[in-house]
Amino acid sequence: MKLLEERIRKDGTVREGNVLKVDNFLNHQMDMNLFQEMGKEWKKLFADKTINKVLTIEASGIAIAAIAAQYFDVPVVFAKKAQSINIAGEVYQTKIESFTHKKTYDVIVSKKFVGPEDHVLIIDDFLANGCALLGLIDIVEQAGATIEGIGIAIEKGFQQGGKIIRDKGYDLKSLAIVDSMDNNELIFREQ
Amino acid sequence: MKLLEERIRKDGTVREGNVLKVDNFLNHQMDMNLFQEMGKEWKKLFADKTINKVLTIEASGIAIAAIAAQYFDVPVVFAKKAQSINIAGEVYQTKIESFTHKKTYDVIVSKKFVGPEDHVLIIDDFLANGCALLGLIDIVEQAGATIEGIGIAIEKGFQQGGKIIRDKGYDLKSLAIVDSMDNNELIFREQ
Repeated sequence: MKLLEERIRKDGTVREGNVLKVDNFLNHQMDMNLFQEMGKEWKKLFADKTINKVLTIEASGIAIAAIAAQYFDVPVVFAKKAQSINIAGEVYQTKIESFTHKKTYDVIVSKKFVGPEDHVLIIDDFLANGCALLGLIDIVEQAGATIEGIGIAIEKGFQQGGKIIRDKGYDLKSLAIVDSMDNNELIFREQ
Repeated sequence: MKLLEERIRKDGTVREGNVLKVDNFLNHQMDMNLFQEMGKEWKKLFADKTINKVLTIEASGIAIAAIAAQYFDVPVVFAKKAQSINIAGEVYQTKIESFTHKKTYDVIVSKKFVGPEDHVLIIDDFLANGCALLGLIDIVEQAGATIEGIGIAIEKGFQQGGKIIRDKGYDLKSLAIVDSMDNNELIFREQ
């Protein structure tokens, strides 16, 4: 998606350790006009799919998922990072390893909100090693629901997450794939 | 706002300890059509204000703020619950006491995204004792920005938060104020 690639070039910053900082428009301050265009793009990319629910994970996926869900006219469910698990039986639960925060945390979704009848579009802001996404996929599979597609804003194409998810056969659409950001030069994959 | 009150009556559940559970449409599974109507309502209620930014706090305020911000055509900034503070000088920081989780946590907003030139609308899902909101107000005041208004989805009118905030002179608009929920009977304040 050219609009997103241009915005990353204009407002993104490359930091040491392959960090791409996009907190001025994507995941701290958030540009609703851009998110609307992203939502419309996913609606086009998944036009042939029947989707009745969007699933994301707190916190930075929520706004993107909410704006996008408007174009599918469906509700959003967000997976919660659990502080303490004392509601066993009522939730699907999975573990996600965070490289950024160097810890493993539990993620939960109430069983009331995803079930075998659901056709889910997963939305998140970033895909790098794929841990968060694999956690969300695990939850949808526990629920017996169908994953119709996965929409990611920015994929780090030089990390393994995208390949892992595509090799599993999921219909993954990343709006911008950064294949390299060596020497502060952003190279996007042609799509 | 009648639509929200009716939805709370229909889909909300009162639990012991004055807990109002609205996780099937407001803060776990989220109804975008309802959020759109809430956004339009705040736009009407704050029609005379010049607003250039919406501020909220992760996680359950984000989707409501994002959808509402579309009607003001402004970006959203969300305050982050900090895991570790090692970016002193770059962020505004405040402490918020959570009665639900019985802990105090640090909340941060990058100084890049709120400054003296900003006219802020604060949006959140719930107002009870007011701790989260007072934290957001503290951040906006640290930034020297102007608080043009505060939009809350559901206020618990029998707790102190609303009175504290209004007594400080802030223009607080709650779309539904629950004045009592004794014996499972919801009584809303006439507005």
